[in-house]
Amino acid sequence: MALSKNRIKYIHSLELKKNRKAEQVFLAEGPKLVEELLDRFPCRFLIATAEWLSAHPHLNVSDVTEVSADELSKASLLKTPQQVLGVFEQPPHTETPAFDRSLCLALDDIQDPGNLGTIIRLADWFGIEHIFCSPNTADVYNPKTVQATMGALARVQVHYIALADFLQSLPADIPVYGTFLDGKNIYTQPLSAHGIIVMGNEGNGICPAVSQHINRRLYIPSYPPSRSTSESLNVAIATAVVCAEFRRQAACG
Amino acid sequence: MALSKNRIKYIHSLELKKNRKAEQVFLAEGPKLVEELLDRFPCRFLIATAEWLSAHPHLNVSDVTEVSADELSKASLLKTPQQVLGVFEQPPHTETPAFDRSLCLALDDIQDPGNLGTIIRLADWFGIEHIFCSPNTADVYNPKTVQATMGALARVQVHYIALADFLQSLPADIPVYGTFLDGKNIYTQPLSAHGIIVMGNEGNGICPAVSQHINRRLYIPSYPPSRSTSESLNVAIATAVVCAEFRRQAACG
Repeated sequence: MALSKNRIKYIHSLELKKNRKAEQVFLAEGPKLVEELLDRFPCRFLIATAEWLSAHPHLNVSDVTEVSADELSKASLLKTPQQVLGVFEQPPHTETPAFDRSLCLALDDIQDPGNLGTIIRLADWFGIEHIFCSPNTADVYNPKTVQATMGALARVQVHYIALADFLQSLPADIPVYGTFLDGKNIYTQPLSAHGIIVMGNEGNGICPAVSQHINRRLYIPSYPPSRSTSESLNVAIATAVVCAEFRRQAACG
Repeated sequence: MALSKNRIKYIHSLELKKNRKAEQVFLAEGPKLVEELLDRFPCRFLIATAEWLSAHPHLNVSDVTEVSADELSKASLLKTPQQVLGVFEQPPHTETPAFDRSLCLALDDIQDPGNLGTIIRLADWFGIEHIFCSPNTADVYNPKTVQATMGALARVQVHYIALADFLQSLPADIPVYGTFLDGKNIYTQPLSAHGIIVMGNEGNGICPAVSQHINRRLYIPSYPPSRSTSESLNVAIATAVVCAEFRRQAACG
């Protein structure tokens, strides 16, 4: 079966959130990503080169189209198309789980889809299974987000929720961490093995309504600590440094 | 003076490295970035809204064009143009400095311009002043790289150099670090306050010719450490975790 113009149009339409939402699907590209997602999400259809298909003879997908590299590049949103492209079903919306006293992330209006995807990927590395996002955070099913997760989307659960209300509803003894310029040095503060780490918007940081629920204010020191230039950290980078330090302290004390 | 079609065309031509190289210039957009670069690089021309210009009455730039937001969006490469756009001169090529026994980064074929820019930004935060890049690493003057540096380009020096030869030329007592799946836990290894940290290509890691010069093999533990899923870290994220740990140990012992 050749690749129809309608299908190419359909794939490209999934760049827009309203279309993804209406269809309850999302797009993923590339062997590593698609292979990981096939284990986790029902697949509506796959488009792949003969090379990829011959390496995957036992696919549990009813709608598979073999294409040339040229045809694939017409469907792909990537600059460098990579053998296979899949459209997957979004999991049904579930109630946000009760906070289970593990270590979780909360994202307050992270705007950049790539940052969100990178954060999901590093959460997976650091054993964080739940991410609570404010409603204005980038869409987890944005193709740029999906690509940046490199498959971690199959293991990390992302929940959209009114963040201030959610934090307010937590038991008072749950540590809620956030990074601030006037916070305490993260390397010398004892960090708990559970709680919520809140990360803020790329330009504005954590909004006042959310920050009033933060009961542990942290700071990532620059080096040397006394410098006062205008540097700052990308939010995904800051998230990584914070998560790494939580896990380092848990492992090394 | 209105914005000419030729100038818009010129700006867009700077997406390509060959044009940036021929003209020895690069493009930067947005108030924070442009303001930081104005302190460091000669500016060929600026295009800005009346609002931005009225806030900057003492510009030392001879070629300034005031534009409407609409006109700016025609010139801009950004989805959301931000008040000001500048074309700056690339600094003249200088000899790569002798290794000064500070802490430096070396990048082996980092492909993604955004990753390179993010690494330059975090290097600045962690007080790393020199980055040595293999010739196939993304171009530091790619607009996506420049934007991702958020101005750190004004403070961090990036050198392109044959990386294996450079590492070979170092005195034998210089620690050369790299991350590998079979490396030693970074949290329990004593890390020196100087040396070279080598980070590898997004897909392939550090190439064999470079890795043979690495004399300290490190590993960033995932959490829990025993997990064996397919996760990995984005190279900019891994760079951040490594640099943070070097600086933590320097500060906290």
